[in-house]
Amino acid sequence: MYERLPEQNYIQQLSVDCVIFGYQDRQLKVLVSKLNFAGDFYGLPSGFIYQEEDIDQAAHRVLQYRTGIADIYLQQFHVFGKAARKNQEFLDQLIALNPDLERKDQDDHAIYRWFARRFVSIGFYALADMTKVKLGKSEIDESIRWYDITELPPMILDHREITECALEALRHDLDQKLNAFNLLPDTFTIKDVQKLYETIFDRTFVRSNFQKKILDLNVLERIGKKFTGAANKAPYLYRFKQ
Amino acid sequence: MYERLPEQNYIQQLSVDCVIFGYQDRQLKVLVSKLNFAGDFYGLPSGFIYQEEDIDQAAHRVLQYRTGIADIYLQQFHVFGKAARKNQEFLDQLIALNPDLERKDQDDHAIYRWFARRFVSIGFYALADMTKVKLGKSEIDESIRWYDITELPPMILDHREITECALEALRHDLDQKLNAFNLLPDTFTIKDVQKLYETIFDRTFVRSNFQKKILDLNVLERIGKKFTGAANKAPYLYRFKQ
Repeated sequence: MYERLPEQNYIQQLSVDCVIFGYQDRQLKVLVSKLNFAGDFYGLPSGFIYQEEDIDQAAHRVLQYRTGIADIYLQQFHVFGKAARKNQEFLDQLIALNPDLERKDQDDHAIYRWFARRFVSIGFYALADMTKVKLGKSEIDESIRWYDITELPPMILDHREITECALEALRHDLDQKLNAFNLLPDTFTIKDVQKLYETIFDRTFVRSNFQKKILDLNVLERIGKKFTGAANKAPYLYRFKQ
Repeated sequence: MYERLPEQNYIQQLSVDCVIFGYQDRQLKVLVSKLNFAGDFYGLPSGFIYQEEDIDQAAHRVLQYRTGIADIYLQQFHVFGKAARKNQEFLDQLIALNPDLERKDQDDHAIYRWFARRFVSIGFYALADMTKVKLGKSEIDESIRWYDITELPPMILDHREITECALEALRHDLDQKLNAFNLLPDTFTIKDVQKLYETIFDRTFVRSNFQKKILDLNVLERIGKKFTGAANKAPYLYRFKQ
């Protein structure tokens, strides 16, 4: 953030914040970055929008650094646009713990002014198949890792609220967009799908009803039996039809 | 648009576009403004965002001018953020037909530069009870009126696409947010509700199923019979429970 921000290259006062969901061991995960400064500052992967870049491209750029995936499933879900949404307080906390920033800032005060203003942020959520993710860092990340959504660290600004809003949007979209399959590996059993839905909605479903509902959607292709060693009881494997 | 735009008062390159839906005579309507310039320029009610204003407040301000309703039902639904989304071509057409604008512009070239750039637009849809709307104009409107959504005039920029996207969002939201009742007067019959749903979805529903489905939602309060003169056959009137 304290790298040189050429004002004219970015749209001012507009940012993208990305909630990247993953799924593993019946837990819904969110990718959170620890910022590369003194102090425990955690946040969602975020960025600005180049003048010559679509907002979706900006989000993809932010995500590709962290996941290595170029074509990750991405959905804009809400704009966070309160007048009080300003970076100044966060920035002052950061500077208090990183006094060298202030000196650097005095050389280039425009960057502080640029970043401390009100920002309207476009929230995107992404759904990642964790088996395909290669975690990577941008310059601003000290480290980055998956957190269970029930065990998130305290995050800067309104990133907690953005995450909760993203989960609501995912639940809202799930039936119509059928996008949850993006969280699974290429092949899976119906039981895997049920566990995924149960995790996202934080409730249980009746097995026979769920199985019928999912198969009736006619979006899954049966491709054989899962090898378990006990052939008779092996469940069928499916993949999502494009 | 050519009134003085004090750059620092607004967030730059960010706008709100509003699709205001109404419902009358089994038609879904959209409020469209004819711009107050020579040439047939039609567009959605739009505006910019003051630095000290929430984005929702900006949309309410834009809507209140045109509908007279302060607390209209409002929902943000999508951000239109392509890099190619620029006002310059539209502005040049406008100036070609309104040569006095160019002279005015030469007095204050900054306004042309301000407005001709790329704009990211936050789309809102609003649902209005047409019996409560008092149509009004802002400075930029020559006139404003309701159009059937199937008979919209050609509109500037991507306002047609924004309108179509708003209708999709309304259909998507209808079941979960139960917001369609905002399009009806305070009291209505179940048949009114069915006709409204049929209009929005552009299909028919089986009467008995629809009635059961709506009543099972337990969001309607029965308040008496509609006076029709034929008491025995009079349908019940309902209102939406808050």
